[in-house]
Amino acid sequence: MAYPQTSFSHTSFSSPTFISRRRDVVYSTTLLYQLNVLKSTGRYDAFKLEWHLCYHDKPDVWPVPNHLFWDSDVAKWIEGACYFLLREENPTIDGAVKELVAMIRSAQQADGYLNIHFTVVEPTKRFTNLRDLHELYNAGHLIEAALAHTQCYGNDLLMEPVLKYVDLLCATFGPGPEQKHGYPGHPEIELALLRLYGERKNPKHLTLAEYFIAERGNPTGQDGRHYYDVEAEARGDRDHERPVYYPKRRSYWYQQAHEPIVSQQTIEGHSVRAMYLLTAVADLVRIEGPSSLKSADRTNALQRLWRNMTEKKMYLTGGIGAQKQWEGFGIDYFLPSSTDEGGCYAETCAAIGVMMLAERLLQLDLDGKYADIMELCFYNAVMTGMASNGKQFTYINQLASTDSDLSRRAEWFTCACCPPNVTRLLGYIGGYLWSFHVDENEKSKSVAVDIHMYSSATLSIPINDSVVEIEQSSNWPWEGKIAFTIRNPTDVATTIKLRIPAWAATWQLSPPLPNAHPNKGYISLPPAYLNAHPTFHLEIPLLARFVSPHAYTNQTIVALARGPIVYCVEDFDNPWVDDHFKSLVLDPSSRVTERAVKASSSMPEEGEGESYIGLTAHNAAFRMPENANDEQLAPHHIPLEFASDSDPTPQIQQRPGIEQLHFIPYALRDNRGGKGHMRVGIRRKL
Amino acid sequence: MAYPQTSFSHTSFSSPTFISRRRDVVYSTTLLYQLNVLKSTGRYDAFKLEWHLCYHDKPDVWPVPNHLFWDSDVAKWIEGACYFLLREENPTIDGAVKELVAMIRSAQQADGYLNIHFTVVEPTKRFTNLRDLHELYNAGHLIEAALAHTQCYGNDLLMEPVLKYVDLLCATFGPGPEQKHGYPGHPEIELALLRLYGERKNPKHLTLAEYFIAERGNPTGQDGRHYYDVEAEARGDRDHERPVYYPKRRSYWYQQAHEPIVSQQTIEGHSVRAMYLLTAVADLVRIEGPSSLKSADRTNALQRLWRNMTEKKMYLTGGIGAQKQWEGFGIDYFLPSSTDEGGCYAETCAAIGVMMLAERLLQLDLDGKYADIMELCFYNAVMTGMASNGKQFTYINQLASTDSDLSRRAEWFTCACCPPNVTRLLGYIGGYLWSFHVDENEKSKSVAVDIHMYSSATLSIPINDSVVEIEQSSNWPWEGKIAFTIRNPTDVATTIKLRIPAWAATWQLSPPLPNAHPNKGYISLPPAYLNAHPTFHLEIPLLARFVSPHAYTNQTIVALARGPIVYCVEDFDNPWVDDHFKSLVLDPSSRVTERAVKASSSMPEEGEGESYIGLTAHNAAFRMPENANDEQLAPHHIPLEFASDSDPTPQIQQRPGIEQLHFIPYALRDNRGGKGHMRVGIRRKL
Repeated sequence: MAYPQTSFSHTSFSSPTFISRRRDVVYSTTLLYQLNVLKSTGRYDAFKLEWHLCYHDKPDVWPVPNHLFWDSDVAKWIEGACYFLLREENPTIDGAVKELVAMIRSAQQADGYLNIHFTVVEPTKRFTNLRDLHELYNAGHLIEAALAHTQCYGNDLLMEPVLKYVDLLCATFGPGPEQKHGYPGHPEIELALLRLYGERKNPKHLTLAEYFIAERGNPTGQDGRHYYDVEAEARGDRDHERPVYYPKRRSYWYQQAHEPIVSQQTIEGHSVRAMYLLTAVADLVRIEGPSSLKSADRTNALQRLWRNMTEKKMYLTGGIGAQKQWEGFGIDYFLPSSTDEGGCYAETCAAIGVMMLAERLLQLDLDGKYADIMELCFYNAVMTGMASNGKQFTYINQLASTDSDLSRRAEWFTCACCPPNVTRLLGYIGGYLWSFHVDENEKSKSVAVDIHMYSSATLSIPINDSVVEIEQSSNWPWEGKIAFTIRNPTDVATTIKLRIPAWAATWQLSPPLPNAHPNKGYISLPPAYLNAHPTFHLEIPLLARFVSPHAYTNQTIVALARGPIVYCVEDFDNPWVDDHFKSLVLDPSSRVTERAVKASSSMPEEGEGESYIGLTAHNAAFRMPENANDEQLAPHHIPLEFASDSDPTPQIQQRPGIEQLHFIPYALRDNRGGKGHMRVGIRRKL
Repeated sequence: MAYPQTSFSHTSFSSPTFISRRRDVVYSTTLLYQLNVLKSTGRYDAFKLEWHLCYHDKPDVWPVPNHLFWDSDVAKWIEGACYFLLREENPTIDGAVKELVAMIRSAQQADGYLNIHFTVVEPTKRFTNLRDLHELYNAGHLIEAALAHTQCYGNDLLMEPVLKYVDLLCATFGPGPEQKHGYPGHPEIELALLRLYGERKNPKHLTLAEYFIAERGNPTGQDGRHYYDVEAEARGDRDHERPVYYPKRRSYWYQQAHEPIVSQQTIEGHSVRAMYLLTAVADLVRIEGPSSLKSADRTNALQRLWRNMTEKKMYLTGGIGAQKQWEGFGIDYFLPSSTDEGGCYAETCAAIGVMMLAERLLQLDLDGKYADIMELCFYNAVMTGMASNGKQFTYINQLASTDSDLSRRAEWFTCACCPPNVTRLLGYIGGYLWSFHVDENEKSKSVAVDIHMYSSATLSIPINDSVVEIEQSSNWPWEGKIAFTIRNPTDVATTIKLRIPAWAATWQLSPPLPNAHPNKGYISLPPAYLNAHPTFHLEIPLLARFVSPHAYTNQTIVALARGPIVYCVEDFDNPWVDDHFKSLVLDPSSRVTERAVKASSSMPEEGEGESYIGLTAHNAAFRMPENANDEQLAPHHIPLEFASDSDPTPQIQQRPGIEQLHFIPYALRDNRGGKGHMRVGIRRKL
């Protein structure tokens, strides 16, 4: 069983597509750009363990020092760099990786401990605040970097110190009387340990990951009390002294530690933490097998929390997290579009986390509902996180802008988790397109390939001293026709499952396959069909459609979508806007046309920009009058005389209608300049 | 210039009306009921300064001890009792007042200090936490009790110790180098001191009130820093140790102390605090005169904050406050109906505070916009706070119920500010109906009466050794015809202004007055008219109308209103409901009929219930299907094919329509039993 972080090497991307172009930009620009930022901010040299002036700074987000996860920023950069070096050499990147690895090796303490802050700044405070201070999180990213490094370089230069560190962690944490019965405030190490176990087969790693997952939220786990309570008391924290992200004391739901995971009924708290945690839980179920007793409880929890998240706590873009204070989930159906409507957060890292979780859930249960969400997130809430030129990013991804939160990307962030997360994802994105299984138990081998996402790429599966190649060719997500070619020199029995997205009104396979119906979102092409038709086509018409959130969100809005792409309006195409499209009203029964927009030569010289399909709504929109209150007979009451046949909203259409309202993909916003006014869901005409 | 708390004695209520019946219930039942609760909870005896077991309890709302404002619960009961004793004797109530006064006198320390908690529980901590611990709030209510007591009994038994306490406060707080440059965390004493100044004319009282108001929020007021910062540091508070109602540290907007009042642009924080504060500010402007320099800034602030509150932060019911954590205002237009939609708080005391503020603003500027809000609050957000039987109350007044917050009243509350606030308001409500001014500057006197609210009552104005009586007779708020009679034996020149509510589509005065047009919401009847027509009628047709909040609230809902009354649906009349009417969809173009409901003999024996006008919407409603998600082609996306002419919400009408949807006044909810399912604003049919 492979992980995308390893299986991606079987995928090569071909003719320009959205994905390949993004990968090209990362390789040509973003990795180097990020490397320069690592250097200029001090992260690059931090493992030299010298004092950096910023270590004095008061934390922006008390009690978390601003530099606390520099370890992980470096680790994630290394990880992403290694994925791209596998595709193509680059002396600068290669040199930096080697230099960083050397610094990391030199930063290790004698007992294996490896952490910048708790070596340089607070050397006596190691493991005294698991709840807030990211030690295990940083360790997890070091593990992931080591796995990528070994895969790329074929040596253990980074893996060696990491394994020694993990040995220390295995000794420190666990159920033993002398051990700490704790677990990380920010999940990450769990999924990393499981991948490490998959690679090195050391049962201690599985045991530690399982311990962290099972112990989490145990109300009596340490001396008959919750570990975080005991830990806080030992630190001398006051009862009502709490982190800025805790609205109230003991807000352990923030890190999904308010009760054991298997008891949690709804998804709560910090979104990234939740996603990394559940990704690990799903992987643990896979490793232990779905029929173990614990797996049943965990599977139920995963299903329950996935449902709650996708049905009641997810934005149209796949983004998750409405609440800024804890960067996470609000209550059911609480999904305002922007900060001035109650909050919209939708952190880039969180949407990446959704993809990670969806991918693991697909391994447990091949169901298009997971892949639909995975793809929705990728093309919208994740890819909106990087500019076309690969050098600006977003952390927060509101569905509408405000004066205080314009639709603008930034060069970097004090908490810099999102940019390297995007780049490493694009490094191994090939592992998300498809999963494959080689069945070698029988005399004759067979191969099963499940295709989750479409692009232009080739999957190469080594088998029988030969290679089976599955090639798909398309201009997805702009065009819905995918051409497939199978090259199967030794005629291995091959089955291909093709995902039919739930939003696809129709689809056509040619040559046809009689009685082909999607089963849980996938149609299955048996070996007989593939032998007879080594080339075939799937066509999924991509038609613009209006989408709305659930009525209980109280968002009476409509957004445009086409295929997996969710759209937005920007001031660049609609320069008359002056209020973030807040007063705009859209009639969803009106005519929508498409326009193909080619990458322009006026794009930044670092790249040619991205081609896309834009949408235009004709004579569909108008703006509410400026002083909607003027019509009110009592403060904010808009009387609607029930006996009247006239338009029930009498104050409308006092300003000229909008003849053409132009939409672009949400992922491609803020690439052309402008005022930063943007909106996904437009107020719907009543 | 009189205050309603004194001028009310000029008003006598006559034939049964909503107001008179409520006053009767308070007199016959509520005062005694509350007296019993004061006794059973320990409040009654608390001024004996003995230890009560509950003083040990951990605070529900840290750091505020649960018993901290028992002083004010007692004071407010005394105040209300004194108002009602003026109307009718009652030996039990009278005896209790006298006993309480004796206990209060005995609780005073030698230097004048008078506070239960800081005498019994923390005697060394007086004035060390103005931000959180209610000393000055309690003192303010003692002042108001003393004013009512003196007015009722004609002696200074309560006033004497209160004045001595105020002397201590005047010495303790002020700009002097040895004085504390502080101000109360919970405003109340400011408005009380101003009333005391109006009564006793001691300039020190005005000075202290003005100091508290002007100093509030001064960022450098104490030793170059904010007073609350200095005070917290002196207490040894940790930087991130904060009260439960502070989402972040230094949330001084909670008590409107984040910056000077005159700089505040929007209304923020705890609603009751805001209202009591601004009431005092308005009264200060009146006292100092509108043309002083400070008055100009204060008037601008009052206007700005009033506008922001009524246009962007007020519920359809007049309720204010969406956020439970700080019992106060959310951001502009953030007005969810219920806790499961993001929050609805609308504390009873806060709506009373709106009335208090509106009443003071009317004294500065006679404008119907203030009286419209005052009346809206009274008949909805305030009067919903008490059951018909006078023995159950609400603190929080959501506009829709949920499983965790049913539409139910309670017998009492740990923080018991609301019930006695309702009863004392009903004591002096006569002072809200009308304001009158006697002009004695000229040789011939004249009287001006501004009528703000309609009922059945008589205003008696002593003048010229005689009395001018203005009698109004109506069945307001159920019927819109008011008969007026002026009895003016000495023919004093009298002018009457009648308020025409903004929601009144039409009105008729008979006999007519040519060219009578509302000026800022009031029509003016000159002496000539009144001499010619000592009896006249005003008719304001009360027609059911649909109302909606501003579009930017994202609440696409409609509510029914009739006159000043806002309606709701309850399960009692609509027993099919099982989900708090959440899935109900209402067509505002449908037919609505009225039904007169007489007080039933099946009402609780303590009272006959209340007659009212109910409303019924016919064939106007249906319920969305249970699984609205089933129609979605992608999680929570409801695709709306733009080319389709069919009903854009294809999932509707899968359950039978509702032939008759019955509405009752929101103030009269939860008087008949039932499941506690209630909703004001129904989802509007798209």
